Amino acid sequence: MKNQISLAQGREYLAIPGPSVMPDAVLQAMHRPSPNIYDGELIDLVPTLARDLKRVAGTNHNVAIYIANGHGTWEAALSNVIAPGETVLAPASGIFTYGWAEMAEGIGAKVELLDFGMSSSWDMDRIADAIRADAAHQIKAVLAVHVDTSSSIRNDIPALRALLDDMNHPALLMADCIASLGCDRFEMDAWGVDVMVTACQKGLMTPAGVGFVFFNDKAQAKRAEMPRVSQYWDWQPRVKPKVFYQYFNGTAPTHHLYGLRAALDMIHAEGIENVWARHEHLAKAIWAACEIWAEGGALEMNVTNGAHRSHAVTALRLTDGRGTPLRQFSERQLGLTLGIGLGMEDHAGCFRLGHMGHMNGQMVMAMLGGVETAMAALNIPRGSGALEAAAATLAIKP
Amino acid sequence: MKNQISLAQGREYLAIPGPSVMPDAVLQAMHRPSPNIYDGELIDLVPTLARDLKRVAGTNHNVAIYIANGHGTWEAALSNVIAPGETVLAPASGIFTYGWAEMAEGIGAKVELLDFGMSSSWDMDRIADAIRADAAHQIKAVLAVHVDTSSSIRNDIPALRALLDDMNHPALLMADCIASLGCDRFEMDAWGVDVMVTACQKGLMTPAGVGFVFFNDKAQAKRAEMPRVSQYWDWQPRVKPKVFYQYFNGTAPTHHLYGLRAALDMIHAEGIENVWARHEHLAKAIWAACEIWAEGGALEMNVTNGAHRSHAVTALRLTDGRGTPLRQFSERQLGLTLGIGLGMEDHAGCFRLGHMGHMNGQMVMAMLGGVETAMAALNIPRGSGALEAAAATLAIKP
Amino acid sequence: MKNQISLAQGREYLAIPGPSVMPDAVLQAMHRPSPNIYDGELIDLVPTLARDLKRVAGTNHNVAIYIANGHGTWEAALSNVIAPGETVLAPASGIFTYGWAEMAEGIGAKVELLDFGMSSSWDMDRIADAIRADAAHQIKAVLAVHVDTSSSIRNDIPALRALLDDMNHPALLMADCIASLGCDRFEMDAWGVDVMVTACQKGLMTPAGVGFVFFNDKAQAKRAEMPRVSQYWDWQPRVKPKVFYQYFNGTAPTHHLYGLRAALDMIHAEGIENVWARHEHLAKAIWAACEIWAEGGALEMNVTNGAHRSHAVTALRLTDGRGTPLRQFSERQLGLTLGIGLGMEDHAGCFRLGHMGHMNGQMVMAMLGGVETAMAALNIPRGSGALEAAAATLAIKP
Amino acid sequence: MKNQISLAQGREYLAIPGPSVMPDAVLQAMHRPSPNIYDGELIDLVPTLARDLKRVAGTNHNVAIYIANGHGTWEAALSNVIAPGETVLAPASGIFTYGWAEMAEGIGAKVELLDFGMSSSWDMDRIADAIRADAAHQIKAVLAVHVDTSSSIRNDIPALRALLDDMNHPALLMADCIASLGCDRFEMDAWGVDVMVTACQKGLMTPAGVGFVFFNDKAQAKRAEMPRVSQYWDWQPRVKPKVFYQYFNGTAPTHHLYGLRAALDMIHAEGIENVWARHEHLAKAIWAACEIWAEGGALEMNVTNGAHRSHAVTALRLTDGRGTPLRQFSERQLGLTLGIGLGMEDHAGCFRLGHMGHMNGQMVMAMLGGVETAMAALNIPRGSGALEAAAATLAIKP
Repeated sequence: MKNQISLAQGREYLAIPGPSVMPDAVLQAMHRPSPNIYDGELIDLVPTLARDLKRVAGTNHNVAIYIANGHGTWEAALSNVIAPGETVLAPASGIFTYGWAEMAEGIGAKVELLDFGMSSSWDMDRIADAIRADAAHQIKAVLAVHVDTSSSIRNDIPALRALLDDMNHPALLMADCIASLGCDRFEMDAWGVDVMVTACQKGLMTPAGVGFVFFNDKAQAKRAEMPRVSQYWDWQPRVKPKVFYQYFNGTAPTHHLYGLRAALDMIHAEGIENVWARHEHLAKAIWAACEIWAEGGALEMNVTNGAHRSHAVTALRLTDGRGTPLRQFSERQLGLTLGIGLGMEDHAGCFRLGHMGHMNGQMVMAMLGGVETAMAALNIPRGSGALEAAAATLAIKP
Repeated sequence: MKNQISLAQGREYLAIPGPSVMPDAVLQAMHRPSPNIYDGELIDLVPTLARDLKRVAGTNHNVAIYIANGHGTWEAALSNVIAPGETVLAPASGIFTYGWAEMAEGIGAKVELLDFGMSSSWDMDRIADAIRADAAHQIKAVLAVHVDTSSSIRNDIPALRALLDDMNHPALLMADCIASLGCDRFEMDAWGVDVMVTACQKGLMTPAGVGFVFFNDKAQAKRAEMPRVSQYWDWQPRVKPKVFYQYFNGTAPTHHLYGLRAALDMIHAEGIENVWARHEHLAKAIWAACEIWAEGGALEMNVTNGAHRSHAVTALRLTDGRGTPLRQFSERQLGLTLGIGLGMEDHAGCFRLGHMGHMNGQMVMAMLGGVETAMAALNIPRGSGALEAAAATLAIKP
Repeated sequence: MKNQISLAQGREYLAIPGPSVMPDAVLQAMHRPSPNIYDGELIDLVPTLARDLKRVAGTNHNVAIYIANGHGTWEAALSNVIAPGETVLAPASGIFTYGWAEMAEGIGAKVELLDFGMSSSWDMDRIADAIRADAAHQIKAVLAVHVDTSSSIRNDIPALRALLDDMNHPALLMADCIASLGCDRFEMDAWGVDVMVTACQKGLMTPAGVGFVFFNDKAQAKRAEMPRVSQYWDWQPRVKPKVFYQYFNGTAPTHHLYGLRAALDMIHAEGIENVWARHEHLAKAIWAACEIWAEGGALEMNVTNGAHRSHAVTALRLTDGRGTPLRQFSERQLGLTLGIGLGMEDHAGCFRLGHMGHMNGQMVMAMLGGVETAMAALNIPRGSGALEAAAATLAIKP
Repeated sequence: MKNQISLAQGREYLAIPGPSVMPDAVLQAMHRPSPNIYDGELIDLVPTLARDLKRVAGTNHNVAIYIANGHGTWEAALSNVIAPGETVLAPASGIFTYGWAEMAEGIGAKVELLDFGMSSSWDMDRIADAIRADAAHQIKAVLAVHVDTSSSIRNDIPALRALLDDMNHPALLMADCIASLGCDRFEMDAWGVDVMVTACQKGLMTPAGVGFVFFNDKAQAKRAEMPRVSQYWDWQPRVKPKVFYQYFNGTAPTHHLYGLRAALDMIHAEGIENVWARHEHLAKAIWAACEIWAEGGALEMNVTNGAHRSHAVTALRLTDGRGTPLRQFSERQLGLTLGIGLGMEDHAGCFRLGHMGHMNGQMVMAMLGGVETAMAALNIPRGSGALEAAAATLAIKP
């Protein structure tokens, strides 16, 4: 950028669907010396994290903390309840269910995959057919991605629970809330979820590097029957450690724990219901702009039905395929980094807006204003009044 | 905010006309142990700061660094060249010239004040009259505020220099660039400025606490004739110290110096001409929006002539006087803090946008988007298409 | 501590054998916004880390980076080369070989364990016997802990290599350098190590949370024959990713990567040979004090033969069993936290000094001075002149 | 240092008598965005700082906060109560009284200076003579340096107060507590001090850049009679501001205020009596070592009478003049930076230990251990057992 004029020389805004914007309080909390890992405040800290993570997830059961990213928690969760040769059902809306399913195959599971494409949420009838067909209860778990970050589809977890219950199918309901926890409403116990995985770098507002596996008694019963679980992935000592190091099977991720403490403090100070309401309100402002842009015929929202859209990420498509120049203009001329298209056949034309976690009204206007500017720079046809429509939505007092 | 829904729970944006948004690199540089103040790297650092500050100011002469805010540099500069009983001429556009003039009175000077109101830049004819009337050369200095942060007026320093030259008046030309340095074009030597004062927390992107007095040989000649200059304000040892502590008349402002080093590195990596061009381009985008809002009849730009407007701050007025609720909505519901009206008779209706220093396109859209939202929330009449007009301006590749 | 007089109210010194003291440059580098994980500087950064990690390890082969602690790298490494039912040989000096061996059992391996106690390094004859007895080459790998953090024993890796070579045994030589890398001399390729694991929070001076598995072509050949390797642990895509996210099987540990970059810069600016020499010199100063204290009959160094002692950690024993009060006095009255005894039968009487990573002469004197003070407070008999002996060693210009 | 072996490559310890070691909590608090300076939390913060600064100083009267170093507070304090032509009495033990006296001359005062050399505290008889001789009450203030940082002399302020009272002399008693506040006991109101100046970078543990002037009603009465006080130095609006900016005569030193808040929280959590007791105990440990070193005949404590020694700084002298090589060895080989000799005729042989503020037992041992090591390296004769003597002192439970 040196010796070139750019309008990007200011505070950078990373508006991708994870990692999200890290709060100052979190970064401050991590800027500290290493603590003792055998004695003292760290030992007292970890149980408070478990307690407050469970409040965010809406569960009274267990949470194991892993030094791992979201993919790691996929493998961790599966390793505790799925033995080689067992079957999982994977209803896929977007690409991440594929990823989780491949993880399952990697540990020797058989995968029955239902593909609902990149723009539709689950077809409950087809899932029902698959469950119904499994009279022998070969399916040990259903891998349910709550929000798919690539497509911005949000699936209906309670409906899936009802379906399993109606059919008296004993499969574990395993949810991936990596993109949704702390953004979209999720209530583990009330919704009957048996295992839930998530990671810290999105709605939990902590730099990437720590992941979580929540599980209930039904899941633990399946764990108890497993022929073998690798030591590192075993969730048992992590939730009931005899000595502190077992929480993490070795050295604790010290600085992340302090950052997470600060993030959880923010979430519970705001109140999880308020966090969800904020994300919904901000998402509606974003959609209001997108719908108007879409009138120009060159931009589409990937998920047409708002009821199936995440409040944390919005996937968009430029029909002329110019997603990359749009993102480049935004980043290089404005200081706004948008998410790339992921998993779409026409991914070059796609881009994504992340609006998860530490996110407020002025950030929404920066993001949308940046997109408007970049579309103007590229002469992309679009409806007029999009930004004002977003502003009008934000103007409604929540 | 606890237990109430708000859309402000994200990254806060302080969009006031100083302090400006601090770059991460600056804050990182300041997060460090204290250095030795008698030996080592700090001793080598300070001359590089002086060198690079002078490059920003466009001067080959001298700069004295003070642990002080901008007001402190007013007193420091005056104390070196104006003795009790001497006269200064103070042409005032906005309130800060009044502040400087009171400082002059505080050290015993006589002040001849010309008031050009809160919305107009200098009337050069009236200044010429005042200079012409001073045949006896009682006026020892003209206090010239380059950009007035309260009114967003930018005055024409080269024209003032020309006027003094034309009339062969020996008064020092003393410029206040607190709000303009590193934002609006300023060239000390080329423009014939004898003394210039500024501070670190605006275009220089460093947390408030350090100020600067630049001066040339003519100013030093006046200094040499002074009957007495207080030790702390004396600029002589600060520019030619025999021992290091004299740079600061005592302990150095250690952490600020590291922060300033990082800020100067950013400015010179971008290039000062590019910095000015960026501020101009961003300002024009802001004005484009304001002009459209103004069509609704309820909002006015304080300075009507764009040629006299700062590129670093824009003062606005709501004719219905609702500046305070506008700012409150913006801060509490959106996370965007706007500047208060300052010095205006109808200050309750006024507010200001700061766009100085570490400032890019997405920040402009956040700021304008926030104002649009707040006006929508308050049902303030405004022209439509303001945000799109700003975006269209930003879309032009600089 | 409130409202009680304590001499601990100053900068805390965590002198345990990991995590070590984090350099300011590392913490500063981590205090930053999240970067884009699909494009930009992070993508360029990771290959430089791999390159410079390999320079620290003395290898031209491969390194896979895991979001994991050291225990995680144990499982990761084993998962790539040991199939269920295969055998590993584990010669144990101290407790960590036991930990690694249990990890091996956790993935289904058979373990042949040789126990050399808590105070002696490997008995090469007994290892030779075990290798010789394995004419059928059932042993697929030898788990070789270079430095055991619990006992402070350092084992002779080149001798083990020579032994395997002499007997033409094809087992992989797998080294655990968690406590030694960046402290004690280690040269992976020159020493014929096939797989090496380590983590970031000791000699690599980065907050806990990232681990590394280095491997050569022979190890990769064994990997290629594996019936199945779990996706998350698979090292192949991590060293030859087709797309960036495969480096980490998902989201990168963004902030740790910046911290690690700063740490590697420090190591290579100093020079790895100098790093090793510094650790050796500091260790000798520590031992000089310990030997004199030991003259009092109440304190023993756990490893009597200096040739088998780590330069990164020193395990000590109070024969009267008062390790805990010693550590408590040191922490609560002086601000110095010592390591607990680990794995010893008489662990209550043991304590450990960590001297790894970001470690200099004044820190050695603080640590030893704290121990001297605590022993004085507890009236523990000790030889006199220990601190002066350490100072005399440090006084020798390296 | 590159490519050379050094034992200094670890955490640096700056053991000079100011700036002191900054606590992490203070640096963390300063690593944050700029706040609004017209509204919000900063406006609420400043009165709490004034309140808690006064608790540290032992006064119920006033404190004005200046963006300035200690020298700046000298000029600020004088400017409020001493008019040109008025006289101050300056009893000098060490060099800083000279500095303050020159400041007084710089504002036009006459100075009557009493010189007690570099190693002795005030001779109260000579001061009494000077006061007695001033029957006309020409002396308007006595400039009383509590602790002189160059010499480590601590003067007896209550005795000076008693002397003035006994002689019914109305001069203001002005104390410089720059090196003592928050270290050595000081009770402004109980001791009858009228004006006190200090700065933030020593016992107040905040990066250099803010200073303080405390004053009582008697001082304010003198202020009220002043013919003119410069606006920037005027303390009146700073203690009773009508609008917030008057606290600082312009922009607030935003980040320092947050740092100071954290530092004051630490001081009051510990308790100021405990802070004093800690400094005294640590000082005695340091002196115990110095006294034994001194037995070798090559090292002297500058102040022989412990009752007149500061608990915050210790000035030492090597009779062979090798202060500089001692400090260089310590810094370059050990990572410990000692204070230079200041103001002594034989300053090359002198050095100083700072032990102020964020200071605990392990730091004392690091500092003394470093000195012992450096003396060993230079073959400086010294008594043996110095470090053990310090340890024995620290071992006594306070």
